[in-house]
Amino acid sequence: MGGLPVNSLATRAPEAAAITVPVPLGDRAYEILVGRGLLQGAGARIAALGARAAAIVTDEHVGPLYARSLAEALERHGLRTATLALPPGEATKSYAFLEKVCDFALEARIERGDLVVALGGGVVGDLAGFAAAVVRRGVRFVQVPTTLLAQVDSSVGGKTGINSRHGKNLVGAFHQPSLVLADTAALDTLSLREMRAGYAEVVKYGLIDDASFFDWCEARWRGVFAGGPERDEAVARSCRAKAAVVVRDEREDGDRALLNLGHTFGHALERITRYDSARLVHGEGVAIGLCLAFRFSASLGLCPDRDARRVEAHLAEAGLPTRLNHVPGGCGTVEELLDAMAQDKKVKGGALTFILARGIGKSFIAPGIAADEVRSFLKKEISAAQP
Amino acid sequence: MGGLPVNSLATRAPEAAAITVPVPLGDRAYEILVGRGLLQGAGARIAALGARAAAIVTDEHVGPLYARSLAEALERHGLRTATLALPPGEATKSYAFLEKVCDFALEARIERGDLVVALGGGVVGDLAGFAAAVVRRGVRFVQVPTTLLAQVDSSVGGKTGINSRHGKNLVGAFHQPSLVLADTAALDTLSLREMRAGYAEVVKYGLIDDASFFDWCEARWRGVFAGGPERDEAVARSCRAKAAVVVRDEREDGDRALLNLGHTFGHALERITRYDSARLVHGEGVAIGLCLAFRFSASLGLCPDRDARRVEAHLAEAGLPTRLNHVPGGCGTVEELLDAMAQDKKVKGGALTFILARGIGKSFIAPGIAADEVRSFLKKEISAAQP
Ligand SMILES: NC(=O)c1ccc[n+]([C@@H]2O[C@H](COP(=O)([O-])OP(=O)(O)OC[C@H]3O[C@@H](n4cnc5c(N)ncnc54)[C@H](O)[C@@H]3O)[C@@H](O)[C@H]2O)c1
Ligand SMILES: NC(=O)c1ccc[n+]([C@@H]2O[C@H](COP(=O)([O-])OP(=O)(O)OC[C@H]3O[C@@H](n4cnc5c(N)ncnc54)[C@H](O)[C@@H]3O)[C@@H](O)[C@H]2O)c1
Repeated sequence: MGGLPVNSLATRAPEAAAITVPVPLGDRAYEILVGRGLLQGAGARIAALGARAAAIVTDEHVGPLYARSLAEALERHGLRTATLALPPGEATKSYAFLEKVCDFALEARIERGDLVVALGGGVVGDLAGFAAAVVRRGVRFVQVPTTLLAQVDSSVGGKTGINSRHGKNLVGAFHQPSLVLADTAALDTLSLREMRAGYAEVVKYGLIDDASFFDWCEARWRGVFAGGPERDEAVARSCRAKAAVVVRDEREDGDRALLNLGHTFGHALERITRYDSARLVHGEGVAIGLCLAFRFSASLGLCPDRDARRVEAHLAEAGLPTRLNHVPGGCGTVEELLDAMAQDKKVKGGALTFILARGIGKSFIAPGIAADEVRSFLKKEISAAQP
Repeated sequence: MGGLPVNSLATRAPEAAAITVPVPLGDRAYEILVGRGLLQGAGARIAALGARAAAIVTDEHVGPLYARSLAEALERHGLRTATLALPPGEATKSYAFLEKVCDFALEARIERGDLVVALGGGVVGDLAGFAAAVVRRGVRFVQVPTTLLAQVDSSVGGKTGINSRHGKNLVGAFHQPSLVLADTAALDTLSLREMRAGYAEVVKYGLIDDASFFDWCEARWRGVFAGGPERDEAVARSCRAKAAVVVRDEREDGDRALLNLGHTFGHALERITRYDSARLVHGEGVAIGLCLAFRFSASLGLCPDRDARRVEAHLAEAGLPTRLNHVPGGCGTVEELLDAMAQDKKVKGGALTFILARGIGKSFIAPGIAADEVRSFLKKEISAAQP
């Protein structure tokens, strides 16, 4: 075997090599597998969970690309399957489609031991995962995330849900998947815009508590986009970071809130643009939100200006928006932004909770931030000219 | 104080005396309080849970009777309240009303530490409990059951949910309440028909595994209906029986299914009568179902005929229906009944699971009952003349 590293052998095996990220949540423990070409071996891996049937939920972009071969692979391994393709887009995370997916699963006679398989981005994962949580008061589900955002974030951790007219993700369940299969080759068909949006979440993990990962991102981000080994590494490292937080705080009573770095601002922007993905997708909101969180921290004297500038420079280099006035069609007024933030879940007893930072890799939960502090910061941001 | 029993003193205190039934479910443990006049002290007891706000969900029958005074009591104890009264009836356990209740709770700015209070029968409890399970991925809730059925059954154990076009309770969550307040005086305004329906569930507990409780029922049932101390005793004993099963098997993977005695048949009848309460209410379906379960057991040679006759005689004495041809408007054909049963949740891998009995107080889970056995039993039942 000479000097070859041991796991390069695995790439010659019929099944693609996978990096395994365990999520040790006691009797809800599961594994995230990350690797190029994993979809080919998905039949065997999913069948190993021991179900008789799988209801595959996907969307109309992803379905034509990957659903048929996934269904066939499952059937070859003895599972009965049915497939439902939903309209793509955030508007699908609604009560109406929750009903539709639940009906579909019941129609497919999914029983307690069977599976819902979410094949798609975060929209499909959140919706199908929520349906799995409530159909027959809970059936198992598998995440097969096909966007970078879903691979590094939404498919990990068991948060599922839909949007309400009061805000994003306000209705849902904690329901852990039984398996996550992240085939990084599936990202080859993703648009650059969606790759960038997902990449904002990758950067987030560095910013939360891993400055060396942020350094790595600055140096290696092009490989993530190009589909080199950096992509698998970025996905696996992100999953590992998220899993660590989730294991510490599964139900978000404590420091899981750190994962919301950039999200209080980001969600507000999504509300204001009415979840219209033509204007703003989730990850773009997060990118702007990350920059705002760092600049807000800097303006409060908590974080060096230099770090805030470094965050902005890297996200801009990767092609992401970084400022309120980068939102096509405008970001609303200061009061509209504040209102939108107050509706967010990170409100406890009336005061606003933000995730702020003392520097790159040094984020912390800051409860009780007065609305006036936020107001004057936002005023400055809105009036600032585009750099 | 002479020979007075100690707890008779408590009835003179401003708060009504309560029987406490603990439900020891680890970090989801809670208490069921049973007693006449408990609603008067509800403000203090609910406020003791430490919430800031309560969203009271009720229906248009119960609201006018009890909601105002409950809301005022809570407000006196410092809670902000809002009240929503829904149309009474099984049809309210729907996706549309789930959305309505969730929106209401969000509108009322119910946060993670706050409460949804379900004031009403099983319909309100199941729907509001499910909404509490999913709003913000779970807020706490309190059950204030006002029907006998809700006091002895639906408010205990954490099963919540709505109906789907594929069947009853097919979508929902396990979500334990933080407190159950069963004011037995609230049953004084309940119709005799609804009292009877709830009483079928009381009898069920004796039939499952407590023959001496069934004896007690035969001897004392009139006191339950008349509102004497027997009523509190029956409610508390039923809650204790149910809590014991729930603690052994919270998520219904094992012997919690015993609680479904009479329900496979009962649910099928409810489906066939389209949940039209003018024709059949849940407890009436259960009463017929209990008789069918015993007669089916007897016809399979498992249970003495004498016990099946005793079950029927007691339910009939209490004014409940006991035969398929007691269903107003008919019970459908044998095949319709079988179809309706196959859609029920107690189907595992295609075979039917029934709860059968070897006698009164000797029920057991019988998986893998062949459809043909059921078919020929139902044929006999349908053709049998009314006694
Ligand atoms: N549950 C969580 O913890 C969590 C965390 C973060 C975000 N989210 C949610 O995730 C959602 C956003 O997820 P998203 O960014 O994946 O959006 P998405 O699911 O809408 O996917 C984005 C677009 O890419 C398309 N697409 C997906 N995979 C593709 C592929 N391989 N090739 C070509 N096109 C493909 C989709 O059809 C869609 O048009 C939001 O609703 C957000 O709230 C959830
Ligand atoms: N979650 C569980 O474990 C569980 C168990 C058993 C039954 N259930 C569910 O419970 C539901 C049936 O519950 P239910 O029998 O209480 O029906 P219900 O809630 O429909 O109440 C019956 C009727 O009585 C009225 N009412 C309620 N309290 C009253 C009072 N104090 N005075 C006057 N009128 C009053 C109601 O408005 C309604 O018209 C079904 O949907 C069934 O599926 C759930």
